[in-house]
Amino acid sequence: MSVKIYDTAEVQDFLVTVSGFDKEGGDERAKQILHRLLSSVYQLIDDFDVTPEEFWGAVHLFNEIGSAKQGGLLAPGLGFDHYLDLRMDAEEAQAEVEGTTPRTIEGPLYVAGAPVSQGYTRMDDGSDMQSEVMWLTGQVRDTEGKPVAGAQVEIWHADAQGNYSFFDPSQPEYHLRCTIIADDEGRYCARSIIPSGYGVTEGSPTDQVLKLLGRHGQRPAHIHFFFSAPGYRHLTTQINLAGDPYTYDDFAYATRDELVVEGRRIEDTKDIATRDLDGPFTEVVFDVVLPATQDPELQQRHKRPRALENA
Amino acid sequence: MSVKIYDTAEVQDFLVTVSGFDKEGGDERAKQILHRLLSSVYQLIDDFDVTPEEFWGAVHLFNEIGSAKQGGLLAPGLGFDHYLDLRMDAEEAQAEVEGTTPRTIEGPLYVAGAPVSQGYTRMDDGSDMQSEVMWLTGQVRDTEGKPVAGAQVEIWHADAQGNYSFFDPSQPEYHLRCTIIADDEGRYCARSIIPSGYGVTEGSPTDQVLKLLGRHGQRPAHIHFFFSAPGYRHLTTQINLAGDPYTYDDFAYATRDELVVEGRRIEDTKDIATRDLDGPFTEVVFDVVLPATQDPELQQRHKRPRALENA
Repeated sequence: MSVKIYDTAEVQDFLVTVSGFDKEGGDERAKQILHRLLSSVYQLIDDFDVTPEEFWGAVHLFNEIGSAKQGGLLAPGLGFDHYLDLRMDAEEAQAEVEGTTPRTIEGPLYVAGAPVSQGYTRMDDGSDMQSEVMWLTGQVRDTEGKPVAGAQVEIWHADAQGNYSFFDPSQPEYHLRCTIIADDEGRYCARSIIPSGYGVTEGSPTDQVLKLLGRHGQRPAHIHFFFSAPGYRHLTTQINLAGDPYTYDDFAYATRDELVVEGRRIEDTKDIATRDLDGPFTEVVFDVVLPATQDPELQQRHKRPRALENA
Repeated sequence: MSVKIYDTAEVQDFLVTVSGFDKEGGDERAKQILHRLLSSVYQLIDDFDVTPEEFWGAVHLFNEIGSAKQGGLLAPGLGFDHYLDLRMDAEEAQAEVEGTTPRTIEGPLYVAGAPVSQGYTRMDDGSDMQSEVMWLTGQVRDTEGKPVAGAQVEIWHADAQGNYSFFDPSQPEYHLRCTIIADDEGRYCARSIIPSGYGVTEGSPTDQVLKLLGRHGQRPAHIHFFFSAPGYRHLTTQINLAGDPYTYDDFAYATRDELVVEGRRIEDTKDIATRDLDGPFTEVVFDVVLPATQDPELQQRHKRPRALENA
């Protein structure tokens, strides 16, 4: 279709009406943002001659994504989470905050309310005898190298099938999820199992979008973290285990060089005995540096609808 | 936040990667369209300093809209259906097609497969004794004034509570829905009840979006139509009944001047008897003019996921 109508007064006036600019009530910022978004999409429809069939196909896919509650899964696949991280990075760079552990995306699979332990906990229920034991440990420090005693460390990761408890109801409650209060040296330690990578369900609406883009929906094996302590900026981050085929090809774009961690296989019987384990295991060390802040808002994770957060 | 990163090489390269431009597979047009859409939204986030909280609130609302299958309800509320109509109008104006009945939006509440009748049918099941009887009739003609014998006329409308059968499971199957094959004069006739206006459910995700814009979610009393016949362009349209408070304030922007129809109250006993009715009724006349076309695609309604269409 060669007809273009976006720039006509009729369409521009219509966009003003649709966005509620002539109405008293509502939210002024929402009106401005919706007007901008609608204008962009209207112009796109005109420029690309989007057909009704294409438009309604997209609306159908939109409904499917929402029905599957995959908005928070598609978003990182479309790079939004990483983009928001880049914006926060740029803001901190402007404030000359340096030498701290990089943030990376939260993902949609956090569940609030995991049991709290002091210093150490075991995250797996022992039912998976096939997976390698993971000894996950690290120290939380400030930019001067001083330990952050009592820092709160929340950890969550997938099982050997790449599934997360709560979303996978076959796993026990809070399986492979924990909250550890670091000791006086800022150290935390968890016994768990090495997780597998995660893959977007084949044929799911998010997979359909990725397939249109010629992309896959795989993530490397990774472990999620929240770090927080009074007086420090909340840190949302992940580590990717080195050697996974998707370490540098993550569909969710969470990989950052400083966050790729090499596990160390330990077979020494004394090291095994010290940790009260039965055989060889892999130690994964993740030390972090938190920037100080007096801003109470920055000391907490940003608000976002999360599973059980307000339950 | 004063930091802007959208125009950096890092972000522009990232958009190219996210859109799969470096991947062999997928759909080239989908990649181009997604790249354009994502670029617009990334730029919007930068320009408006959209916070993570705002972004995740929007994703949550996106999931809610999809879960409620309201993509097809929000779309007309945001003017997309009317905009697509305006584009098709402009295309036909360029082709100098004139004097035909205007199209207007289909809406999301059509259900395929309504029973077929010859010339006349009754659409209501008689259970609503309170509503005014509607005698809905008209003639289908071509641009020369010649009747289109055997034109297929599909009609659907709401009940006195503004609800549609199928979506409202309390109504019988195909209640207030029908398919009529026009007679040799191109005439169709249906007995039904005067519908009420439709309102978006209070508190539903679509209502939440409209409230942000300071807008309501009301539609005037209206009746949906599909008209089709071999050799003619398919017509998707509606009539709005004159006198409704929302006739010129439709949240879905379907109202067009030529489609506002004044019902005529008939109390004459002979007229009542001719139609085999028991008392006064309202006659609603809707004559239409279809443009000729030899394009088989234009002779059919455009493809769109519809209830029971492929059942």
